[in-house]
Amino acid sequence: MAHGLTHLDKTGAAHIVDIADKGETARSAVAGASLIATPEIVDAIFGGSLKKGDAIAVARVAGIMAAKKTSELIPLCHPIPITKITIAIERDSAPHTVTIEARVESLGRTGVEMEALTAASVTALTLYDMAKALDKSMTIENLRLIKKSGGKSGDYARERA
Amino acid sequence: MAHGLTHLDKTGAAHIVDIADKGETARSAVAGASLIATPEIVDAIFGGSLKKGDAIAVARVAGIMAAKKTSELIPLCHPIPITKITIAIERDSAPHTVTIEARVESLGRTGVEMEALTAASVTALTLYDMAKALDKSMTIENLRLIKKSGGKSGDYARERA
Amino acid sequence: MAHGLTHLDKTGAAHIVDIADKGETARSAVAGASLIATPEIVDAIFGGSLKKGDAIAVARVAGIMAAKKTSELIPLCHPIPITKITIAIERDSAPHTVTIEARVESLGRTGVEMEALTAASVTALTLYDMAKALDKSMTIENLRLIKKSGGKSGDYARERA
Amino acid sequence: MAHGLTHLDKTGAAHIVDIADKGETARSAVAGASLIATPEIVDAIFGGSLKKGDAIAVARVAGIMAAKKTSELIPLCHPIPITKITIAIERDSAPHTVTIEARVESLGRTGVEMEALTAASVTALTLYDMAKALDKSMTIENLRLIKKSGGKSGDYARERA
Amino acid sequence: MAHGLTHLDKTGAAHIVDIADKGETARSAVAGASLIATPEIVDAIFGGSLKKGDAIAVARVAGIMAAKKTSELIPLCHPIPITKITIAIERDSAPHTVTIEARVESLGRTGVEMEALTAASVTALTLYDMAKALDKSMTIENLRLIKKSGGKSGDYARERA
Amino acid sequence: MAHGLTHLDKTGAAHIVDIADKGETARSAVAGASLIATPEIVDAIFGGSLKKGDAIAVARVAGIMAAKKTSELIPLCHPIPITKITIAIERDSAPHTVTIEARVESLGRTGVEMEALTAASVTALTLYDMAKALDKSMTIENLRLIKKSGGKSGDYARERA
Repeated sequence: MAHGLTHLDKTGAAHIVDIADKGETARSAVAGASLIATPEIVDAIFGGSLKKGDAIAVARVAGIMAAKKTSELIPLCHPIPITKITIAIERDSAPHTVTIEARVESLGRTGVEMEALTAASVTALTLYDMAKALDKSMTIENLRLIKKSGGKSGDYARERA
Repeated sequence: MAHGLTHLDKTGAAHIVDIADKGETARSAVAGASLIATPEIVDAIFGGSLKKGDAIAVARVAGIMAAKKTSELIPLCHPIPITKITIAIERDSAPHTVTIEARVESLGRTGVEMEALTAASVTALTLYDMAKALDKSMTIENLRLIKKSGGKSGDYARERA
Repeated sequence: MAHGLTHLDKTGAAHIVDIADKGETARSAVAGASLIATPEIVDAIFGGSLKKGDAIAVARVAGIMAAKKTSELIPLCHPIPITKITIAIERDSAPHTVTIEARVESLGRTGVEMEALTAASVTALTLYDMAKALDKSMTIENLRLIKKSGGKSGDYARERA
Repeated sequence: MAHGLTHLDKTGAAHIVDIADKGETARSAVAGASLIATPEIVDAIFGGSLKKGDAIAVARVAGIMAAKKTSELIPLCHPIPITKITIAIERDSAPHTVTIEARVESLGRTGVEMEALTAASVTALTLYDMAKALDKSMTIENLRLIKKSGGKSGDYARERA
Repeated sequence: MAHGLTHLDKTGAAHIVDIADKGETARSAVAGASLIATPEIVDAIFGGSLKKGDAIAVARVAGIMAAKKTSELIPLCHPIPITKITIAIERDSAPHTVTIEARVESLGRTGVEMEALTAASVTALTLYDMAKALDKSMTIENLRLIKKSGGKSGDYARERA
Repeated sequence: MAHGLTHLDKTGAAHIVDIADKGETARSAVAGASLIATPEIVDAIFGGSLKKGDAIAVARVAGIMAAKKTSELIPLCHPIPITKITIAIERDSAPHTVTIEARVESLGRTGVEMEALTAASVTALTLYDMAKALDKSMTIENLRLIKKSGGKSGDYARERA
């Protein structure tokens, strides 16, 4: 881990790190999150009966568009040529849980982990927004990177996804 | 809860709900999240020794700017005249946890819950981005509304913040 | 009409006109457009069988989000506190036509005509995008203001909507 | 046309399709639109006598900037490295018509049809905005793809441009 | 000046200061800048003979649109309901100087100084961009607030504009 | 210089020039600016005692994020795949001056001069914003390109940086 921590350079200042020497390779990342709600809200989300409209469709579009905005939101992220985005929103076996997975792919010089995490996060927040008239105590848990591939740092897969 | 669920109107279509009849009142919301990492990363975040720069300062600015972008990210949110934003990023008593709180205030016709949640989420994601060269298994947990005040739906405070 | 045309002022330069003296009143605008396609494409749009996904839901979200971006797109538009947005996407009696209507409301100092027109336009363009793998010869016709109310210039209703 | 329509996959969900396998080639697209107005307005647009300023120059800049925003507006569009944009705004032989053409070029993995259509649309809407104090009954017609080249789907040229 | 400097609060952290208690009043600000170039470039800018197009018109639109983006660019600026923007671009008596002035007005709870300064800055940068094929040694000087009115801090006028 | 000036083409219209034939090469640009303030303000900026928070950290993040927004601000700029951004903010030997330098790098088909200038400009404006409660008479001077490398037009270095 020592190679990651570093003595501060002269200024220790925030900067966008150089990626010009990194190869342009196929990269992918999958991130996940869970929305914890009441079973009634989970039913309303998947039954399409929320007052504001079809939560699944709206949240999916929100997640896709957020992935494309990642470098505007996360200050030190590079702009990245995304080649594919998919968002899955599913009922979990637990009756109070909505499971979200975002997959992003790119052919570029840096990874797409932040794009996948941003997409998963905004998808979950959009579900919250559409259901919050019913209950404000929902929480978003376990926002995490599930796996990534490509790039110098190699592949990564979380042990317990 | 019945007033929240509703028979689908003719189309059941997603829409931005009418707030013209709601009063322009003082509104505030506080949202929180936790970044769960290794104690070494928590030390590096607060010690300012991360390679990409001062994580606390960068994440705070990211959270503030994200709050202002909420209506661009969450499809059915109204644009809102924000009057104040503060972000707290603190060490938790648990050695592997960074605690984030975002407070947003407005004088407007609808609440600022989503602005506070978006700010907390992007603050946490920015910390993840700045530390992810050390460890990709960090997770963001307990992204939630802690309290809100103002508006027709009245005040809300989570039982266990 | 003479009050609209004007002798050039010293520079004749583009500018955002002053609205500080205009009252903050309820304003609404409805704009429409038609997507002209093959009957097969119209069937695919409403049957949800397009390869890229549910065109109606995606186009509606796109139109709503575009309304909020109007002042970023149309250089001389003021930023406006939108209070409501709805988008209707319907089959026309003519088998090759999709009818789009966007309604925007505000409490502000200037009208929301451009917001409604921008929403209708982006909704139609999104339908085009989702169906263009099938046929690129679709056209968007009759993008127009149907009616507006509020403001000094008073109400307007197109004779033949 | 069968290859375009498809059985729904497991979810039928909206997604950004994979373009990683498509070649990075030269691509261009030309889109057009017509603004239908009174002859007096057409004169004012080309005579530079509109109260809000030089409509041609403002609308051209608006169209150029909109092309660059396409992937923010059309949810399933990929971000694209645009290499050239030109916008032509001309008097038609018909005295009540302004003709708009937008040309966009790229070296990339997917086409620029939506960029050209978005540019033409926003150029026309900006002309509408600048002239609407004179007459709100203007319409935008015949927003369409005129031709495109490059990419796997090959060249396309509308029969009657 | 003591009321401006302050002991650090507990965190000293960047934040968007509270403006909810400030009155909603008419506010205006005028900012200026100078582009210093060769007399040939100044001639080309005002003669409309630059290869990239009409620099004055493009720079004016850029400045207007930038004013509307101020709260996206300057992290601690509040979003503001702008009511008027004008940009003047003029030849100075000195043959190598282009003079830029941006005026912004609002009815709001905080001033528009940053909006005027951002507009003047982006107007000047756009002129630089359009002429830089001729000479890269141009400089932008004297970017400054010329005057402001409205708000608790009262009126301000620079002694030597 | 004759190759830069040009006879107007048919329209002389603003456009984004074609860069498809330019090679994808390593490019860098360094831009600078000076904020001229009172010595007390310079002390407060570097001492971290400004009421709004840590000006250096906030201004640096603002400059980095602005570089990524350049093609949204400067109408005729191409979107560019930035590979590195650093911002230096330093005390000058003159007690009333803060020196700003922004360095941007890319692997692309056009230069990054405007990205570096935009970053330097927004960094300086953010410092102004954070200190303006103390004194509004600060000015930004000498916003300029210091050097650039890469591309057909070759390297450039200002004689007196």
